[in-house]
Amino acid sequence: MNAPAVDPAVARIVEAGGPQIPGLLAAVEERLAAVARSHGAVLAEHASATIAAGGKRLRPLLVLLAAGPDAVDADAVRAAAAVELVHSATLVHDDVLDTASLRRGRPTVWATAGRGMATATGDLLFSRAFAELAANDSVEQVRVLSWASSALAHGELVQREDAWRTDVTLDRYLFRCELKTARLFEAACRLGALVKGAGADPDALEALGRFGHHVGLAFQLLDDILDVSGPAEKTGKHRGTDLLDGTVTLPFILARERDPELASVDGRSIDTPERAEAICDAIAATGALEAARERALGIVAEAKAGLPDLPQRPALELVADGVVERYS
Amino acid sequence: MNAPAVDPAVARIVEAGGPQIPGLLAAVEERLAAVARSHGAVLAEHASATIAAGGKRLRPLLVLLAAGPDAVDADAVRAAAAVELVHSATLVHDDVLDTASLRRGRPTVWATAGRGMATATGDLLFSRAFAELAANDSVEQVRVLSWASSALAHGELVQREDAWRTDVTLDRYLFRCELKTARLFEAACRLGALVKGAGADPDALEALGRFGHHVGLAFQLLDDILDVSGPAEKTGKHRGTDLLDGTVTLPFILARERDPELASVDGRSIDTPERAEAICDAIAATGALEAARERALGIVAEAKAGLPDLPQRPALELVADGVVERYS
Repeated sequence: MNAPAVDPAVARIVEAGGPQIPGLLAAVEERLAAVARSHGAVLAEHASATIAAGGKRLRPLLVLLAAGPDAVDADAVRAAAAVELVHSATLVHDDVLDTASLRRGRPTVWATAGRGMATATGDLLFSRAFAELAANDSVEQVRVLSWASSALAHGELVQREDAWRTDVTLDRYLFRCELKTARLFEAACRLGALVKGAGADPDALEALGRFGHHVGLAFQLLDDILDVSGPAEKTGKHRGTDLLDGTVTLPFILARERDPELASVDGRSIDTPERAEAICDAIAATGALEAARERALGIVAEAKAGLPDLPQRPALELVADGVVERYS
Repeated sequence: MNAPAVDPAVARIVEAGGPQIPGLLAAVEERLAAVARSHGAVLAEHASATIAAGGKRLRPLLVLLAAGPDAVDADAVRAAAAVELVHSATLVHDDVLDTASLRRGRPTVWATAGRGMATATGDLLFSRAFAELAANDSVEQVRVLSWASSALAHGELVQREDAWRTDVTLDRYLFRCELKTARLFEAACRLGALVKGAGADPDALEALGRFGHHVGLAFQLLDDILDVSGPAEKTGKHRGTDLLDGTVTLPFILARERDPELASVDGRSIDTPERAEAICDAIAATGALEAARERALGIVAEAKAGLPDLPQRPALELVADGVVERYS
């Protein structure tokens, strides 16, 4: 199985990361396919579809880059696969909860096989992620991944708890982003640094972890901004889907402070795509999108500035730039 | 928090297991409650309810007994909590899939908080199970638990794949029981034997694992027999709920070989409680319930005969007897 087609930004990162990266990314795909095949035909079908629909492999790439050129290849590949398995498991469960028929243009497991198969598929991918790390013989890696996967589930709880609450504070929003996105990015970088042979000293490990955290946070902020700013041609969906789902994000939080009329909007009144688009326009009119974007760019700058002076620094900087570029 | 009320069979096992067992079981409850409290108020509410509804704590008891009197207490407690967390996670997800309102007389997370909260609660309990084992500093324990939790999810897939198929073979049925029940029981015994200080040699480890496997298998067979035999006063539900769910189990498989009329029944035609009860009567008339029970008792005897000569042997034998007693 070949690595999926990569976009130009990812191609540049792969190039800067060193000659070993393309081969390792292909090995991660092999590893993911092998896991999908390992529990019978039904899982193979559903898990393969999910994994194939997984997108840009940003998290495995972070693992491989953080691991650096001297890491033991098989260990780096297993750690990268483990992070992607947790990410895939979350996507399968999210599709069940959102009753989503398509993800990246492909039918979801929920759509083709139903709720039961999809829930079990997600559970299996979770379990197999930990088996990958056990094969790396590293309790520390297990600790890092279980910390991140606990955070993902906790973030989902927080999001549901806060649904339709327009009084969500900035701190609460950032906490949710940390749980739902930043910690898995941080875990990817930490896992890379912990791989056998990576040779990261404790300071570099912490610095790489902070880098991943900031990149993940910026990734989520920019994603949330895009949902309000559109255009629909870029996102493939109407503007304001988060508002329709009752999820309050940074642009709305900032706009509310600037526009008393927005501050008085009841979240549940946003119940049609037209109404959601109108609220998006009102948010944009306050300048909140620029303010939110500025905050995200500041976080990316912080991520890059804090990188330790390692051989993989240029490639990691490109990852940070690529996250911004994706949303510009 | 005190240990929940235990039934007399469990009380005898606790007594035979040694003076340390009641304190350790109480410590497991404390540990489970601490995990439930560790991710905010919403999780605390839902996870606590699930954990409290968890029943007899048979799996943690197996961990503690297999660990023996010389194991390090804190490690044995964490391993026992980890197994129960995986079991609880499975129950929460099962309740979502079955849209079950009550479990052991208490409202399920699905019923009180909805699908999203319940799925995330299950995911969090899974993740925290691995964090417990990481705290035990044992990659081998992580490996054993991820093997068992993968099997649980795989078993769920197999069950859904086989739904409404009346031609399920005996081997296929036993494979499903192995995945859905026996491997977590086996993992409980292996984890106990692997706990720091347990001092099980490789032969004892394997023998304890086989014991757990057999006890788990018998547990599932007897549970499936009870669903057909009733009485409803004992199970709290109509006879034949498995048949109504499209789940073919041992009594039906054996009865089909004995009664051509049963062999020609279409699973989907069993669509009312009355029809299910009638099929249960037809199964009972073939003598298949006695044959199934004999098979289960043979597995229990095999479990007991294979136990190594350890101080905890009498208590483990009582566990095996207790599984039979529960269903007699």
